[in-house]
Amino acid sequence: MLNAEIIAIGSEMLTPFRVDTNSLWLTERLNSMGIDVKLKTIVGDDEARLEETIRDAMKRSEIVISTGGLGPTEDDITRKIFARVLKRRLILDDDILEKLKARFAKRGIVMSENNSRQALVLERAEVLPNPNGTAPGILIEEGKCIIAIMPGPPREMKPMFDASVAPVLKQRVGDVLILRRKLNIFGLGESAVDELAAPVYTKYRNPSTTILFKDGQIELHLTAQVKTETEGTRLLDELSGQLEEALGDYVYSRHDETLEQVAGELLRWRGYSLATAESCTGGLLAGRVTEVAGSSEYFLEGVVTYSNEAKMRMLGVPTAMLEEHGAVSEPVACAMATGVRKLAGATFGIGVTGIAGPGGGSEEKPVGLVYIALADEDNVTARKFIFPGDRQFIRILSVNAALDLLRRRIK
Amino acid sequence: MLNAEIIAIGSEMLTPFRVDTNSLWLTERLNSMGIDVKLKTIVGDDEARLEETIRDAMKRSEIVISTGGLGPTEDDITRKIFARVLKRRLILDDDILEKLKARFAKRGIVMSENNSRQALVLERAEVLPNPNGTAPGILIEEGKCIIAIMPGPPREMKPMFDASVAPVLKQRVGDVLILRRKLNIFGLGESAVDELAAPVYTKYRNPSTTILFKDGQIELHLTAQVKTETEGTRLLDELSGQLEEALGDYVYSRHDETLEQVAGELLRWRGYSLATAESCTGGLLAGRVTEVAGSSEYFLEGVVTYSNEAKMRMLGVPTAMLEEHGAVSEPVACAMATGVRKLAGATFGIGVTGIAGPGGGSEEKPVGLVYIALADEDNVTARKFIFPGDRQFIRILSVNAALDLLRRRIK
Repeated sequence: MLNAEIIAIGSEMLTPFRVDTNSLWLTERLNSMGIDVKLKTIVGDDEARLEETIRDAMKRSEIVISTGGLGPTEDDITRKIFARVLKRRLILDDDILEKLKARFAKRGIVMSENNSRQALVLERAEVLPNPNGTAPGILIEEGKCIIAIMPGPPREMKPMFDASVAPVLKQRVGDVLILRRKLNIFGLGESAVDELAAPVYTKYRNPSTTILFKDGQIELHLTAQVKTETEGTRLLDELSGQLEEALGDYVYSRHDETLEQVAGELLRWRGYSLATAESCTGGLLAGRVTEVAGSSEYFLEGVVTYSNEAKMRMLGVPTAMLEEHGAVSEPVACAMATGVRKLAGATFGIGVTGIAGPGGGSEEKPVGLVYIALADEDNVTARKFIFPGDRQFIRILSVNAALDLLRRRIK
Repeated sequence: MLNAEIIAIGSEMLTPFRVDTNSLWLTERLNSMGIDVKLKTIVGDDEARLEETIRDAMKRSEIVISTGGLGPTEDDITRKIFARVLKRRLILDDDILEKLKARFAKRGIVMSENNSRQALVLERAEVLPNPNGTAPGILIEEGKCIIAIMPGPPREMKPMFDASVAPVLKQRVGDVLILRRKLNIFGLGESAVDELAAPVYTKYRNPSTTILFKDGQIELHLTAQVKTETEGTRLLDELSGQLEEALGDYVYSRHDETLEQVAGELLRWRGYSLATAESCTGGLLAGRVTEVAGSSEYFLEGVVTYSNEAKMRMLGVPTAMLEEHGAVSEPVACAMATGVRKLAGATFGIGVTGIAGPGGGSEEKPVGLVYIALADEDNVTARKFIFPGDRQFIRILSVNAALDLLRRRIK
């Protein structure tokens, strides 16, 4: 197995404020090619330490990947130090410079002088295009070592790795295949999942299984290390089939789709449409539904009725109901769902009302109390939840629960 | 300033699933004592690499802090490798062994043999008690270097650091105070900020300044190292005052508030109210506004009018206008803003319409084209943006821009 080492460059990751997440993503990609990550270093704009880190990495590892430090400012020392260690000159690439200028011009901005620094490349290196930003990457083969130098912003680094670095590494690695599968689970806690899943997955050493807890959801990661795709697929099918049987319909995806993608796919497939009425989630539910490209096919409209007045006027929630039960109540959730469904002329209406906190809770209606209602033409039902956590977490959990109710209803 | 280096030991942090968060906490603690963190390394149970990492760290840094790898299993190699590098023997500490046994006995468990490994300590080292777990820590002074070896679980490591490591470091450092300030900036790119700010901040070595780019916004972090709070506040006031002058009203906060907090505070303070009409942002703008606890005081309602039909019916956008200019156009953004303002009876209405992609773009109206309109009783104005990036990034940038327009309008 080839060994890789990741160097994250940037003083901001040596502050208490920022964590290096690029390396997690890179590790996943490298592992899936059968490459082991043996060490990660995070280093700031300290020339001596970066130089030593690069030298050590090249001695120890067959693959060295750096992210960050390619920006236009004085702090961005990556190019300079790699040039020093590799004893190669930095050359201004006219082609890149032109593209940089054009990029700024297109947005109606005159390029500032320090940006031209980003057009410097190492001699005898391959320039990696960056369609999502200004700094191109650099790929170097030095002796047995492959070095990929990439920008720090994830939205620039990730596409660059996939398009320009991964193919080179794959060629070097040859024939080990790592296949992964991920089961997404909603509605059970971590230990409940483990109780159901452990009797199944402990029977297998290959594929291996890892459980992860994330934003109120559980992920099961299965990893198979095999010679052929057929063998890997067979193993993963076998294990994931048994896990899905053990976990039932708590499993909502085995293709790494989000809840909003799964629910959206179901809506689209059946030709159904959706409208949302939100109070405590304040637009986040509509925001998540419309995260999916093409969601305009089934998402008609949403309203955020924060005030009682808006609930009455836009959704026809009766004044008497608000007075008798309060805005956070099952009848009001139901009235919101039916109201928005009718307003939009949609197949389904969802109503969410609750207390996200930190204020506004009481003995009878605590922070975390949320009612979620789902209405169709004939019917409306609501569920009551009491979610843990802070304002932000309660809002995320509410959105997840609403999407899950919709998914289960259509399925 | 003393330099520290953090070594996180454990193969689980070289998987895609787990991030080292201990080091963020440690960095905060070290910074606040006036100690700079110059490098972080994450290494697995690989003896050669750990040995090299420790050797390098001791050469470079006055303080070396390791976490993890002190458990009872074969993989836990931290003690062994430190002993090798420091050329010190490992000795079984009877006192620790007795305590370990007692700890297990108290829980009604017979201690398994491999746990006795945790009673091994380096000769001539200080043993750091671990009231929250089985593995004690180790503190060593070797030449000019202080080495603290601590367990990995945060609930064991953190109290151990505060109780046993921090006092030793404080003594070494002397009386240094670290004060921080953060300026939040919106509306300028990283290099544009640097061009305006560098002439100011490069005049100061203390406070030091770091520029961070995050979700389309810029943060300037100022750090002052001083003897007294008065001196620190004076220095920070002086530098941040000059930076604010150089950057003008692109600076929206110097108290680490978000755009939605700043805009919300302005609304609340003036007794104004807000309603939103969103198309491409699909509810995210309302979601961000209502992220702020207490936002119900000024946020009345939002609508997500994804379909043209909803734009006409709910907001009164004229059919002819939609036909002539298209849904993504300046007049429609303006009509959405005035429509929702009137609908809600709010002081301000915001309308957002654009093409978030990936589909739906054309030569004339490319992906990233977004119109944002702001209406009050007398007036409505719109701005045209062409944002870079993918669907998600375009949506985030649109929300930021809308909040910034509102902030500037009220200010």
